[in-house]
Amino acid sequence: MSGQGNQDEIGVGLIGFGTIGRGVVKVLSDNAKEIEQRLGFPLRLVRIADLDTDTDRGVDLSDIHFDADASGLIADPSVQIVIELIGGYDVPRKFILEAFAAGKHVVTANKALLALHGREIFGAAFSAGLDIAFEAAVGGGIPVLRSLREGLAANKIEKVLGILNGTTNYVLTEMESTGEDFDVVLKRAQELGYAEADPTFDVEGIDAAHKLALLTAMAYGADLTFEEIPTEGIRGLLPLDFELAAEFGYRIKLLAVAKCHRSGEGGETERIEARVQPTMVPTSSLLANVDGAMNAIEVRGNAVGPTLYYGAGAGEMPTASAVVADLMEISREIKRGGCGPVAPLSYLPQYIVPKPVVSDEELMGRAYLRFTAVDEPGVLGQITGALGEEGVGIASVVQREATAAARGTVPVIVLTHSASEAALRAALGKIAVLAEVVEAPRVIRIEEEV
Amino acid sequence: MSGQGNQDEIGVGLIGFGTIGRGVVKVLSDNAKEIEQRLGFPLRLVRIADLDTDTDRGVDLSDIHFDADASGLIADPSVQIVIELIGGYDVPRKFILEAFAAGKHVVTANKALLALHGREIFGAAFSAGLDIAFEAAVGGGIPVLRSLREGLAANKIEKVLGILNGTTNYVLTEMESTGEDFDVVLKRAQELGYAEADPTFDVEGIDAAHKLALLTAMAYGADLTFEEIPTEGIRGLLPLDFELAAEFGYRIKLLAVAKCHRSGEGGETERIEARVQPTMVPTSSLLANVDGAMNAIEVRGNAVGPTLYYGAGAGEMPTASAVVADLMEISREIKRGGCGPVAPLSYLPQYIVPKPVVSDEELMGRAYLRFTAVDEPGVLGQITGALGEEGVGIASVVQREATAAARGTVPVIVLTHSASEAALRAALGKIAVLAEVVEAPRVIRIEEEV
Repeated sequence: MSGQGNQDEIGVGLIGFGTIGRGVVKVLSDNAKEIEQRLGFPLRLVRIADLDTDTDRGVDLSDIHFDADASGLIADPSVQIVIELIGGYDVPRKFILEAFAAGKHVVTANKALLALHGREIFGAAFSAGLDIAFEAAVGGGIPVLRSLREGLAANKIEKVLGILNGTTNYVLTEMESTGEDFDVVLKRAQELGYAEADPTFDVEGIDAAHKLALLTAMAYGADLTFEEIPTEGIRGLLPLDFELAAEFGYRIKLLAVAKCHRSGEGGETERIEARVQPTMVPTSSLLANVDGAMNAIEVRGNAVGPTLYYGAGAGEMPTASAVVADLMEISREIKRGGCGPVAPLSYLPQYIVPKPVVSDEELMGRAYLRFTAVDEPGVLGQITGALGEEGVGIASVVQREATAAARGTVPVIVLTHSASEAALRAALGKIAVLAEVVEAPRVIRIEEEV
Repeated sequence: MSGQGNQDEIGVGLIGFGTIGRGVVKVLSDNAKEIEQRLGFPLRLVRIADLDTDTDRGVDLSDIHFDADASGLIADPSVQIVIELIGGYDVPRKFILEAFAAGKHVVTANKALLALHGREIFGAAFSAGLDIAFEAAVGGGIPVLRSLREGLAANKIEKVLGILNGTTNYVLTEMESTGEDFDVVLKRAQELGYAEADPTFDVEGIDAAHKLALLTAMAYGADLTFEEIPTEGIRGLLPLDFELAAEFGYRIKLLAVAKCHRSGEGGETERIEARVQPTMVPTSSLLANVDGAMNAIEVRGNAVGPTLYYGAGAGEMPTASAVVADLMEISREIKRGGCGPVAPLSYLPQYIVPKPVVSDEELMGRAYLRFTAVDEPGVLGQITGALGEEGVGIASVVQREATAAARGTVPVIVLTHSASEAALRAALGKIAVLAEVVEAPRVIRIEEEV
């Protein structure tokens, strides 16, 4: 049990005392005056639980009960809101459900957990009449989930599209500005703390896809399973790709895209296009100018038109900013004796339903294709011939001279006109079996309207 | 009296049936399904009042009681929320206070009214325990006020800075891309509907200053009077200014800027810097790439760092998007039998107090100065001498050759190092009395960190 407490204050418990947890302690302390002047009462961190109770986090923990007992924290009557910042799946899932069972509201930043176990967790919160808030799970400190849920709530959302992962955006920005190889830049990103020791989740686009699954539910009421989101990472991109992108007037970003295709009487039939892919965007677009570890999300509504939200998508203090904003929202509700009136996923639970995915036949777009072919006459004709057979129009072709390192192969680059994903895949299938094409082609989609 | 009504629905009345009003009718109709799936109940526009009941607005008004009787609308028991979209000061002020007296919540887009009569109107709402919402008043459809009030509520805000007026941004973008004079571009903007017949409020920066007054209250709890915001418009900018800005690596935007200077123990002493001025921003910054009639607002918090919000700052449907978002928020509160728990100006009313303004001695920055001088030897020396005497360092000087049209005068451009506003003004005062300088100088501030 923790202290006496102020009758007026709201007590908060923190499970998981890593970087973000430390940020939460700092924000609650540094900005206590502003928080109280906005709320009308103080927020107090009464208790922290973490398995590592030894490491000095460099923050003042006086008046905070700190031990390794998460279940004790959840059961502590002085804790009214539980912050989960552990990461992973099973342990945080267990603690969150335990918190709901104990009548505690929950704030989490765990997108992976919500993307995979969201149905269970949101269902448990709803049944218990408790709040679950997760602004920090997408876009870090950027209040994009609130904007979708409330600021743009009067819109049919048409598309959500953005840079949702800071690590990959840092790597892409560096590759472009230095001309260095992926592995060199990734290693430096790891040394600088922009990438984790095991960067798979970031580099393969999985983290962005987790976030996109949440955005898709909030934008369209579409309960997409994570497996329904085709996901390609940024491995395999070459300095040549950035060079040619610039020549063609583009920059390369790892874009997460979710569009809603509406058809039928009054647009009643809704099908979803959702994907995470390296994508070329026009150099003059705002998204193209989002550099380094920053994130930006474009949301287009049928009334508001295009809007964009930019900021730090990760990091100690930006993420803590979002976590504490959630604490403030929930604490107001506790004072009123209720839970938040806004559905956490924007739509009321009964309207979040599986929706069909747009087929590859209908998915239209332009693409940049890079083939590696043996340096012999006729190869270019075979490649363009296969594309033509499948109805994939060619806007531009670049064949570079062979370098010594390439051992008799040359890069062949094709920029296509708008074609269906199905046609493109069929053509790539034909090209893959050509003896003269020696590696799997690299495909980079082109998104003109951002 | 209007129809029977559904027990479940919330009834809305609209005063002022112009362009934005028509947009509200469309959004409520076109997006009724999404609105109900997010709220759990329908919003119904039951009544409209406008002096012009003859013009066909081209929208379906069946089941809507439409006449010229605003007071009747306010008194109508089927109206629970009143939307004020009249514009101006006295008449909307009267109706809004009348609505509060009748126990009705209010949504407005009227920044001029709130900037000038905000204290009275917010006070009346607070005393009556009713909501006043005004997301559409700043940034049109961009949910920037919600973001300040809630998404960034855990931060000490350090600066708010942006393009708050679409008309001037359209004119600046066109002047830059065409090289045409201000008057030519303004005339075209008027023909295209981007500028009003009397463009004074926009062109002189007054509209942006109204919006900045609201942002300053929300960001810092600072009750600044409108007169405390130095405001310069975009008249008098020449094609030459855009040309030189580009050479120096900048673009020219009408920026509204509000910074908080914190000093003393724990930053307890807060002084405000607020101004609206044509400003050069680095070409590669996001703000520099906000073109045409679009708006963007950067908000920097001590935890979240820089964030940016972009979208359409005006227009029928974007503004209606924000108005209906406000209706949704208030209608949820009506269902709960209360009023919104979040203070409309982010800080609780008792914490919104007059705060001192930063003096010209402390206001540091770089500037671009354009003088018109007679084409004689020694003039440049006199100008740079006066700047030097006041301690204004010079980073760069450009003197252009005389043209026939200039009748013996030449433009002299000086880019200064960082200097205080007081020193700059003192130097400009000395230069103004020089016989060789024939026109008032044009000053364009430079904002590097955007």
